[in-house]
Amino acid sequence: MALIVKKFGGSSVKDAKHVFNVAEIVVEDYKKGNDIIVVVSAQGDTTDDLIAKAVEINAATPLKREMDMLMTAGEQISISLLAMAIDKLGCPVISLLGWQAGFSTDSHHTKARIKKINTERMKTELSKGNIIVVAGFQGLNKYDDLTTLGRGGSDTSAVAIAAAMSADRCQIYTDVDGVYTADPRKVKGAVKMDEVQYDEMLEMATLGAQVLNNRSVEMAKKYNVELEVLSSLERKPGTIVKEHVKMEKTLIRGVAKDTSVTTISVVGLKDQPGVAFKLFNKLAQYKVNVDIILQSVGRHGTKDITFTVSHEQMDDAIKAMESMKGVFAYQDLKVNNGLSKISIVGAGMESNPGVASKMFEALYDADINIHMISTSETKISVLIDTELSDKAVQAVHDAFIG
Amino acid sequence: MALIVKKFGGSSVKDAKHVFNVAEIVVEDYKKGNDIIVVVSAQGDTTDDLIAKAVEINAATPLKREMDMLMTAGEQISISLLAMAIDKLGCPVISLLGWQAGFSTDSHHTKARIKKINTERMKTELSKGNIIVVAGFQGLNKYDDLTTLGRGGSDTSAVAIAAAMSADRCQIYTDVDGVYTADPRKVKGAVKMDEVQYDEMLEMATLGAQVLNNRSVEMAKKYNVELEVLSSLERKPGTIVKEHVKMEKTLIRGVAKDTSVTTISVVGLKDQPGVAFKLFNKLAQYKVNVDIILQSVGRHGTKDITFTVSHEQMDDAIKAMESMKGVFAYQDLKVNNGLSKISIVGAGMESNPGVASKMFEALYDADINIHMISTSETKISVLIDTELSDKAVQAVHDAFIG
Repeated sequence: MALIVKKFGGSSVKDAKHVFNVAEIVVEDYKKGNDIIVVVSAQGDTTDDLIAKAVEINAATPLKREMDMLMTAGEQISISLLAMAIDKLGCPVISLLGWQAGFSTDSHHTKARIKKINTERMKTELSKGNIIVVAGFQGLNKYDDLTTLGRGGSDTSAVAIAAAMSADRCQIYTDVDGVYTADPRKVKGAVKMDEVQYDEMLEMATLGAQVLNNRSVEMAKKYNVELEVLSSLERKPGTIVKEHVKMEKTLIRGVAKDTSVTTISVVGLKDQPGVAFKLFNKLAQYKVNVDIILQSVGRHGTKDITFTVSHEQMDDAIKAMESMKGVFAYQDLKVNNGLSKISIVGAGMESNPGVASKMFEALYDADINIHMISTSETKISVLIDTELSDKAVQAVHDAFIG
Repeated sequence: MALIVKKFGGSSVKDAKHVFNVAEIVVEDYKKGNDIIVVVSAQGDTTDDLIAKAVEINAATPLKREMDMLMTAGEQISISLLAMAIDKLGCPVISLLGWQAGFSTDSHHTKARIKKINTERMKTELSKGNIIVVAGFQGLNKYDDLTTLGRGGSDTSAVAIAAAMSADRCQIYTDVDGVYTADPRKVKGAVKMDEVQYDEMLEMATLGAQVLNNRSVEMAKKYNVELEVLSSLERKPGTIVKEHVKMEKTLIRGVAKDTSVTTISVVGLKDQPGVAFKLFNKLAQYKVNVDIILQSVGRHGTKDITFTVSHEQMDDAIKAMESMKGVFAYQDLKVNNGLSKISIVGAGMESNPGVASKMFEALYDADINIHMISTSETKISVLIDTELSDKAVQAVHDAFIG
């Protein structure tokens, strides 16, 4: 008998028919003799409806504590409906809100961090033979106020429960049936992987192949929780994410694309010590996450610094740079939204110098110009024009995998 | 500075416009220097939507615990929205769920009773200068599971808070501007009362003039909480409900109508001791509330017993009677759904014997036949044909008040 944690997102429980589909998956595994804890998000429509209600009251600055109060009602609805459906299928079941399942968080409303899970109630309910349905995305702070975990919160809830309860596996159900070497809707020859390492998965997520939320993969790695990414619509194995995977012939695990890239060039900075430090310190103050950084020598004893941020942080990055004008001079700020990042990912890549040149050759053969390059132990990324990005992914995939 | 508890129902917060109307009423009284605790129900549409979702999953027998989990999400939504609106108007505010406000209940899911209110959190929030918005209708049982208080639960929540916090007044906002001597939409000359006694209010509610839920009036009487019934759409005083009211000229405080009356006649019972006891004992086993009872002598040493129940308990009452067939014989069961109860209410009525005859005379003059009569210390009720009920109320109202 195994303890399995299963997580279903908002689209998997969007209406009664989908709720029963989830209930059937759960009941099937329960009847095989497993203990089951199910984590669900709010129904897709509910989330949208609740946000619309808040916007009607205060579009700009609704109280964050009250946003958490509002949004947590969403999972409360979905867990009770799923529990009713599982009961209708004849299995003992109980739904638990985040706080009832023992989730203690800090007090950062709308993006709280889990501090501790008190597993007592969940253990009691399992010992009674109950299937447990837990509201994802939510917890309680030390003031007894409801909090939410921010983006990807339900994945995080599921992995945290799997870690705290020492579950045998944490299954994340999605609308795809596993992790592919590239986006299968766009790349011919994309292959589903049976297994992938945590680090590879992290790079894939960072690079725009967002099957799993990064925070949950990091947590899974930290607590050594075996993840499985699989489809809620088909009954077949997905992709296992774990520490050690069996080596396969191909070195490269996947090709990923991220179209949400803005490059910002600060042109004509004085070439003196501390400029780069002050610049990136200022960006940190504005909470801007910088990805790729390039520094080059400009004309007349100046230098240029170019960096990339996500589209959504572009405005903050520009504000940060404009606030620097009093601190040190620069001649110009150039912003480009038209680039995409194409990356290849694979653990052990660093010990194989031919990989980078093979990637660049594939792009050259496809007549694609590279604007910036960035490398790490497990990935190589290039910036290219967005309109060529699909072609670039296919070319690189063909070279390494297809 | 006074502590005022205000309660608003689902229709008073049904959309953003109505939420802001409530917020303005609250802020107005707060700015006069009062401490304010607001109790709200779920938005009208939300309740309907949630019920529809449950019906889609399991129309017949959804788990009651899960129904409470589902329905309590409704007030969670409305309290957060109202808090956002009050904040938008510039006043400090915090919303509290039933359990956060300290509501402990028993474990009768969907119709729990309040056991205790731990007022600590509410006192802390008031001392911080916060307006408190509390989710009505809900609490927590000793297993840390969410419960709901059943019909009229938000009124009960408001009165319970007023009692526990020793509030100066509990204002129940409705879509009428007070308590009238009869339904003002139907009876010409109906008069709004400035004050009315708890007992009179209880009789009015029982008799179908459902401005206030009975359970909340009983609780207000028990803890001597001064209630005010008033309109959320107009800014003017309503009707005060309290123990001692100033005497007015008229003895009769109101005329009420209840069209949800079913009479059941058990015909041809053996005329022997214990028959009535067994019959009403059986009804109690089926949890049927009996209102008026009439026993009459039948033919050939038999007797007939007729009693009234509400329409919604008719099926249970019939089942109870059919289950009696093995216990003692009766010849026939006659069920009549076509009658209504007309009642006059007034404290001190019992010391004035002319009241009953004046009522019967008014009905006789209007050519209305009386089927059954029932009296108590504070009311006289008659059963008449439903199609004559509006005419009957007007006739009786004209005789005593109009």
